[in-house]
Amino acid sequence: MAEQVVIIGGGAAGPKTAAKLRRERSDIKIDLYTQEDIISYSACGLPYFLENTIQNYETLIIRTPEDFQKQNIDIHLKQRCIDVDTDNQYVLMEDLTTNTKYKKPYNILVIATGAKPVIPNIPNINLKNIFTLRTIQDGINIKEKMLQSKKAVLLGGGYISIEVMEAFVQNNLQVTLIEKEPQILKMFDEDFSQRITDYIIGRNPGQVNILLNEEVVAFSGNTEGGVKSVITNTGKEIETDLVVLGTGVRPNTDFLINSGIKLSIKNSIKVDKTLKTSKNGVYAAGDCTDNFNLITNRYTWVPMGSTANKEGRCAAINIAGGNCLFDGILNSTITKYFEFTISIIGISYKEALEYGFQPEFAIVTKKDKAGYMPNIGTVTLKLIADKNTHTILGIQGIGDGEVNQRINTVIPAILSKTKLESFMHLDLPYSPPYSPAIDPVLNAAQIIYQKINS
Amino acid sequence: MAEQVVIIGGGAAGPKTAAKLRRERSDIKIDLYTQEDIISYSACGLPYFLENTIQNYETLIIRTPEDFQKQNIDIHLKQRCIDVDTDNQYVLMEDLTTNTKYKKPYNILVIATGAKPVIPNIPNINLKNIFTLRTIQDGINIKEKMLQSKKAVLLGGGYISIEVMEAFVQNNLQVTLIEKEPQILKMFDEDFSQRITDYIIGRNPGQVNILLNEEVVAFSGNTEGGVKSVITNTGKEIETDLVVLGTGVRPNTDFLINSGIKLSIKNSIKVDKTLKTSKNGVYAAGDCTDNFNLITNRYTWVPMGSTANKEGRCAAINIAGGNCLFDGILNSTITKYFEFTISIIGISYKEALEYGFQPEFAIVTKKDKAGYMPNIGTVTLKLIADKNTHTILGIQGIGDGEVNQRINTVIPAILSKTKLESFMHLDLPYSPPYSPAIDPVLNAAQIIYQKINS
Repeated sequence: MAEQVVIIGGGAAGPKTAAKLRRERSDIKIDLYTQEDIISYSACGLPYFLENTIQNYETLIIRTPEDFQKQNIDIHLKQRCIDVDTDNQYVLMEDLTTNTKYKKPYNILVIATGAKPVIPNIPNINLKNIFTLRTIQDGINIKEKMLQSKKAVLLGGGYISIEVMEAFVQNNLQVTLIEKEPQILKMFDEDFSQRITDYIIGRNPGQVNILLNEEVVAFSGNTEGGVKSVITNTGKEIETDLVVLGTGVRPNTDFLINSGIKLSIKNSIKVDKTLKTSKNGVYAAGDCTDNFNLITNRYTWVPMGSTANKEGRCAAINIAGGNCLFDGILNSTITKYFEFTISIIGISYKEALEYGFQPEFAIVTKKDKAGYMPNIGTVTLKLIADKNTHTILGIQGIGDGEVNQRINTVIPAILSKTKLESFMHLDLPYSPPYSPAIDPVLNAAQIIYQKINS
Repeated sequence: MAEQVVIIGGGAAGPKTAAKLRRERSDIKIDLYTQEDIISYSACGLPYFLENTIQNYETLIIRTPEDFQKQNIDIHLKQRCIDVDTDNQYVLMEDLTTNTKYKKPYNILVIATGAKPVIPNIPNINLKNIFTLRTIQDGINIKEKMLQSKKAVLLGGGYISIEVMEAFVQNNLQVTLIEKEPQILKMFDEDFSQRITDYIIGRNPGQVNILLNEEVVAFSGNTEGGVKSVITNTGKEIETDLVVLGTGVRPNTDFLINSGIKLSIKNSIKVDKTLKTSKNGVYAAGDCTDNFNLITNRYTWVPMGSTANKEGRCAAINIAGGNCLFDGILNSTITKYFEFTISIIGISYKEALEYGFQPEFAIVTKKDKAGYMPNIGTVTLKLIADKNTHTILGIQGIGDGEVNQRINTVIPAILSKTKLESFMHLDLPYSPPYSPAIDPVLNAAQIIYQKINS
């Protein structure tokens, strides 16, 4: 009898697991269930669908159920998992069309249910035109409303809000972002958060407003017209045509409460390096799992599409009988606000202090190419290293230049705990169209090294 | 009495040493001598001056003698060093304007005389309109002639020829490149050299001709009109208005023959990690020194502006009483042909075999961003790793996409001998405008790892 692999979740990790597993093994029966009516799409691309860089949402779909069927993978749409019985090896499913429940047995189960938005407990939050952005349907709904709107409010100052803000500004909306913390993008150090804020405000003067230390206490409006305004704890009332909640996400694991599968930070699923959960025959991958931070050596939860793909691939190799270890992550994130790149890798200076490192830092602002070349951009980097070990702990990078090139140069050095004295002389290739003779990231390393040694 | 530092050479390493030394120490007397009538310019930028991306050669000048004077550094133009007496600690100089010779004593000497073109021994090579491209005056001369020309011949298939070809094609010249080896860009594996050749030929059909396995045996022409044609060993006669010799460079160290200063590969100057030569009080930096290859653990000679800058900085720190070690290089190079990036880091597959490694490789061709984003480019990568140690030995990257970003991601991993099994899961930041969910460079690592383990 062929082995039955059941995969729950149709975002990134589930489809990746299915596809890779099929490439590795033709003899296994693979069934993938998702509560959505669509699978295998890039949720990370939704902001670019909003702003019309991508015109049709279909473009975001990587593989259709039919594509999977050709690989002999059965896709089951609109099917929600409501419980897992690991003793008897079945999942309890609900057909969302008929509301009927049924059991599906498995030999191997892969949980890849991802994350879902946190909905803050604010009066009238269920009013029309208050959105979250997680699914393609969310994107379609927001875009439709956006095109009829003049004013928008964004709740929360994370990446999603920055990306949606780009779409709204592009579409000539008046945008107000409300963040209860003293800074947006709280993973960044305060100074870099400030630089980013200044750039956003300065880029379209008068069109964007960012309120810090401000909390939304209620929405006003009515059932028919939907939300009309947002009321804050300082008494401000901000008129708006729509609201997007960028108030964070949490692991989509509520259905596992009674399963006995061990949960971890923020109720993400505890997995080992092979992506096995605490229960025999049960794997998990993607945004629903916890993550091991290779710098702090602590468990964390950083839901990222890139990690989901790697974990899905790794889980598939292990299920197929191979050997793949996923060691952990470095909290690497990047986004853009128009031409301005925003990225952080590893830990910030303030986090380094919190975790007991002895951090030193350097900030450099440099041209990204030889000064005499055309189309020059600027990169501003904040490199953080540990005084004791001389290893790099993190980098923050912003600017309209080639930031990603510099950021990526640092990542393997963080992973391998390369010492500053080696890294600062790294033989990066040089030609005037690509960098200055000494790359900005090496300038930063040289400065920290001199600070530490003086 | 203040210490006297004498620096010979006005390209990259010499001025860098002078400027950094002054920042470290205000009490030292610094004199810099150069045989040219200009200092501190970017020779690497000359091809972009040729093609008119840079309109004025002055733009390539990083610092003028007056700038140095403000820092209390004395610049002496048109002064050639003809000998070094390390016992009596003086350099024998020649004033090229008056042809007078004189001695200049030093406490510390820095030799930074760079490299100079190899002039092949071909009949009539001294005809007018046969050029090398090394100095700003070379650039001015070639540009002037190019603007009146319809046909050009490039000798040699190295980076300089590719860069000059871009300028000539841009200016509507008919270009023939002649290379005596079976491939251009001989540091690349044959397959990648072929891909690059195909791209160059295909980009401007009929305008560019590349002759391989073909050697120039003579130039014809006359004293007044200069070169008229190039004659090859297979009997071809190629009419041309000008010729640029891209037939390599060699260390500019002839004047050291009697100095007792130890020379190394190709007569480059042997230096240790502190940039000291074999003689007390004598440092060397830049294109005139040998280089330690950190992959093969052998000495090599790879003259690069980036290395020159790092060595100059490092030498200055050591002269100032600090401690800076320059460990070595990874043979990193990059250039472009119009929108097409060409880069190689570390060693090629064929070199890996020659050096006794057990290499495995993977070639991937991928989009450089999420497939649904606009302005997508393609990157083709050839990653090479060692089967025994699972470490990365090199990468070749080409394409009209963001190649540099991928290349740079590999370099610290080569330096730190990061194993494939760690590298292939590297937490690179992901967002659709910057990369696919799994970066191409990680795809390549995954493929090699699977090849090695299957």
